[in-house]
Amino acid sequence: MSDTLITRARAARVRGTVRIVGAGLLGASIGHALTAEGVDVALADSSPAQLRLAVDYGAGRRARDDDDPTLVVVAVPPDVTADVIERELASFPNAVVTDVASVKSEPVRALRERGVDLARYIGSHPLAGRERGGAIAARADIFVGRPWVVCRDEETSAADLALVEGLALDLGATPIEMTPDEHDRAVALVSHVPQLVASLLAGRFVDAPDGSLRLAGQGVRDTTRIAASAPELWVQILGANAEPVVDVLEALAADLSSVADALRAPDAPGARRAVADTIRRGNDGVERLPGKHGQNRRFETIVVMVDDTAGQLGRLFGELGELEVNVEDLRLEHSPGAQFGLAEISVVPSAVRRAIDGLEARGWRIASVND
Amino acid sequence: MSDTLITRARAARVRGTVRIVGAGLLGASIGHALTAEGVDVALADSSPAQLRLAVDYGAGRRARDDDDPTLVVVAVPPDVTADVIERELASFPNAVVTDVASVKSEPVRALRERGVDLARYIGSHPLAGRERGGAIAARADIFVGRPWVVCRDEETSAADLALVEGLALDLGATPIEMTPDEHDRAVALVSHVPQLVASLLAGRFVDAPDGSLRLAGQGVRDTTRIAASAPELWVQILGANAEPVVDVLEALAADLSSVADALRAPDAPGARRAVADTIRRGNDGVERLPGKHGQNRRFETIVVMVDDTAGQLGRLFGELGELEVNVEDLRLEHSPGAQFGLAEISVVPSAVRRAIDGLEARGWRIASVND
Repeated sequence: MSDTLITRARAARVRGTVRIVGAGLLGASIGHALTAEGVDVALADSSPAQLRLAVDYGAGRRARDDDDPTLVVVAVPPDVTADVIERELASFPNAVVTDVASVKSEPVRALRERGVDLARYIGSHPLAGRERGGAIAARADIFVGRPWVVCRDEETSAADLALVEGLALDLGATPIEMTPDEHDRAVALVSHVPQLVASLLAGRFVDAPDGSLRLAGQGVRDTTRIAASAPELWVQILGANAEPVVDVLEALAADLSSVADALRAPDAPGARRAVADTIRRGNDGVERLPGKHGQNRRFETIVVMVDDTAGQLGRLFGELGELEVNVEDLRLEHSPGAQFGLAEISVVPSAVRRAIDGLEARGWRIASVND
Repeated sequence: MSDTLITRARAARVRGTVRIVGAGLLGASIGHALTAEGVDVALADSSPAQLRLAVDYGAGRRARDDDDPTLVVVAVPPDVTADVIERELASFPNAVVTDVASVKSEPVRALRERGVDLARYIGSHPLAGRERGGAIAARADIFVGRPWVVCRDEETSAADLALVEGLALDLGATPIEMTPDEHDRAVALVSHVPQLVASLLAGRFVDAPDGSLRLAGQGVRDTTRIAASAPELWVQILGANAEPVVDVLEALAADLSSVADALRAPDAPGARRAVADTIRRGNDGVERLPGKHGQNRRFETIVVMVDDTAGQLGRLFGELGELEVNVEDLRLEHSPGAQFGLAEISVVPSAVRRAIDGLEARGWRIASVND
């Protein structure tokens, strides 16, 4: 599919002026990328300070009243997205209008209710991670290699669709066509509910005795890492995608209560089976997540002990390079109280022997190996 | 505290024969570490094949009928731990008996019911991660820098306690004294429930449309990583620690249903507040987890784009070493469909400027920076 998109996109490279409303991280990042390609980028933001920053950092020029953009990108917070889309459609009758909000059904529903003609609107959502940081954190390449959902409906013209998908491809992203409903259910499952689950689990640590938290290892740190996310944005996202999120939460609550029932009577017939099925089902589910490069490749992990000094990791990975061992994934595990860490290196099975022998020959201590 | 422990341990270094029952990953790893220190290690295992492997790999010698150990370490699966402790206490009247099972109340309860005299028994639990792998994956240093819980009670003699804490220190671990109940509630919160939550969440992916999983990012991958754990062991662990696990699950279920209620009526008074509090409480909770070296230091993250070729990471970390930038933590984020990754590097705030300038001067593309 992406091949045909690329072909279409080449023919549909964004031309003329692109107007970006909202010069935060996403808006300013799009501005940087398009400016770098010589596109005329007109920036607007309700905050003069944010706008000044974005312009000063080179994300584009200030928008003018006489701009006649071919494309308007709405990159404002979820709770004002619908209003801004409606205003932009009215102000720029020759432009295709898209947005980058992380929820797609709600704005469309609101605009339809108001009787807004959405023929020139195409919702989209670049999954470019870091929502925090504003114009200063903006970078041209945060979209490279990331999925960029483009929502078409029966009203969408092929040319307009190609324009928005062309924008995604110009920024190095991978366009994925979905309906707003498909998109919202997908992000509820793989983004919004995981955020809530991590927050709820981490929330249980607030009143825990210090001693018990000393036993925390890498597993729970990974499971709760995203619990550090900023509340402001998530309140808007979750509120705007409430129904799909609640559906997943209810299914999760049912699963949770049935495994709790099994554990209340661990010796009852079927109890062990029910617990085993929960873990096994989790094995199957996590296997379905796209891993590196969207594939589900399996790697073996080599755990190497590294001193906690600058240059140590450089030596390690430099020597892995000499050994022609490609590091597929890595994770630095810290040992509480110790002045060193454990580097978990994932490599393809065929490279394990070479990596271990080579590293041990160079004096590295291999802590363990497992696939 | 650990200073005093170290002093005591130096005086209480394990002497004589240490008998290890169960030559799996933990038992064989303890054997490797003690053998390396010149301790006489006598290995026993119900599986002749497993025992042969452990002996061949240098974890110790085969146990003999005339062994008179000063310390017996029971490293068998949870469901047989109590039986083996009882047998070893009876067979070796001069030995202190400890175990390394990941649940501590259940065996004691079972043994008390049978009227077993536990004066010479001290339960312990090294939090040494990888339970998988058996004798082959065993390494002398998997305990280095890890917490090692030692459970004392009123019956415990100071000398016996020092012997077991000395074992932990001999292996490079950090002894932490807790009651069996404190331990079991702690691991329920920071290990057992996180495992179940990750498994339950990943379980929801089993029937999800492929397209929706394409939108999965690093966040959900981290949140569900441990869902890949082996069911066999977890069924035993969760069954043996059912009550504390159920207590946490019930609290979690209550939190989950109240945030679900708030999302069912997102515009109701207090609904946004309830959702915000959930995320904010998660912020507070995750802050309490010990980070690197058991501290709660905050770092800034620099995201660098790296080609997916051997040696690239070596060059990156080598040059960070030249810049005298110490990498506090790192994570490799993969871009679905793209042949490169994003290396998230955590550094102390004071090193951020130096790292960015130095890396950009050397031609690296910095994707973003955020704390």
